Amino acid sequence: MTYGTLILLRHGESEWNASNQFTGWVDVALTDKGRGEAARGGELLKENGLLPDVVYTSLLRRAITTANLALDAADRHWIPVVRDWRLNERHYGALQGLNKAETKDKYGNEQFMLWRRSYDTPPPAIDPANEYSQTEDPRYALLPQVPLTECLLDVVKRFIPYYQAVIEPRVAQGETVLVAAHGNSLRALVKHLDGISDADIAALNIPTGIPLTYSFNEDGSVANPGGTYLDPEAAAAGAAAVANQGGK
Amino acid sequence: MTYGTLILLRHGESEWNASNQFTGWVDVALTDKGRGEAARGGELLKENGLLPDVVYTSLLRRAITTANLALDAADRHWIPVVRDWRLNERHYGALQGLNKAETKDKYGNEQFMLWRRSYDTPPPAIDPANEYSQTEDPRYALLPQVPLTECLLDVVKRFIPYYQAVIEPRVAQGETVLVAAHGNSLRALVKHLDGISDADIAALNIPTGIPLTYSFNEDGSVANPGGTYLDPEAAAAGAAAVANQGGK
Repeated sequence: MTYGTLILLRHGESEWNASNQFTGWVDVALTDKGRGEAARGGELLKENGLLPDVVYTSLLRRAITTANLALDAADRHWIPVVRDWRLNERHYGALQGLNKAETKDKYGNEQFMLWRRSYDTPPPAIDPANEYSQTEDPRYALLPQVPLTECLLDVVKRFIPYYQAVIEPRVAQGETVLVAAHGNSLRALVKHLDGISDADIAALNIPTGIPLTYSFNEDGSVANPGGTYLDPEAAAAGAAAVANQGGK
Repeated sequence: MTYGTLILLRHGESEWNASNQFTGWVDVALTDKGRGEAARGGELLKENGLLPDVVYTSLLRRAITTANLALDAADRHWIPVVRDWRLNERHYGALQGLNKAETKDKYGNEQFMLWRRSYDTPPPAIDPANEYSQTEDPRYALLPQVPLTECLLDVVKRFIPYYQAVIEPRVAQGETVLVAAHGNSLRALVKHLDGISDADIAALNIPTGIPLTYSFNEDGSVANPGGTYLDPEAAAAGAAAVANQGGK
């Protein structure tokens, strides 16, 4: 059986992207701009004849709405949907809810970049009583332990085994699989797919709303290392904008 | 184990409800009014503390969007979703796409009401080459035979066994289950739940956008015959409006 295509789609602008706040597991909505990005992502799928057979999303509204709007635009609103917390954004710990520019000013650029991009150093844990903690959220009621903070390595540890056990077998069956998720869960997956080192992953930025596709050789290895953006020009501009976050 | 609650939600106004056309399996979108009805349905769930654990939808956009908007409004956008063609609206055969008032004028009220409300007489079959046929639609590719027309009995035959095999066991486990579907698939289900005769089901009209809840005794029988609307006044007005369709 020939492998199918894996399509990664990072959600577009959320309310806290717009207000420059750390979001993590806080369940904020897309802005109108973000909704437009999602629909445009779906149109790109349709224009390129990439029609998903199944979609995986996180449990967060901004990824769920992105999937809904993109699939509606692609006329694939009717495909099976699977949601799992393992696709969630990285938990940003005590930084959740804080303004990025103020945090950078207060702690300095070095600490700021360490929290944003260190592979294995998480931010300080959030207080479970903090309004932006998820310890009482019913959607995580079945987890043995709701995270209080995560580094990218933690995301790799929770998401990649799920990808290998649940998502990859469907691609291996020849299906076109859409993963609608977040900056850091998708960075974890791209690190795995492209064999990027713990050090080099810090420099990888994934733009929002532009489908990134991977195809595979018969042995399951990636046939197009680095993946293929459906709109490469917009992707390059988008990645630069992500890299520049934390500015005012 | 105590039974949970079953919640039925009929989608709100679609583009062809607004233009007074027979829709059936044609995949038209909600109007802005219909989107508002869906969100209001979700707010009613939230206000009444009825939080679905799982949602079932048809493969048609108007029910899928209704579920998405209602669950978003109820903060339950993250629950598991199951879609199945067996929840689809009744296939309206050769009437799909025709204007209801013109059809009534052309064929007379008796024939019109027979097509709308006969339990076991379907409308004439649609020509597979008709632009409003679904014989080439990829979402039905796995069906042995895509319907060319259906009467309500056909809907009962396809939907009730699915309800009994897939949906009812989840209610029996104590879950709160949302079914977001269509006028006739929900009439088929209510006929089953309330033991309504083949003759009497003709007079049953289900209003749009207002959650209709069923609770159950320990033996699985319905504890509140006829169900309970979360907004009874709006439901009565809505049912009267449905009964009056076909007028100009």
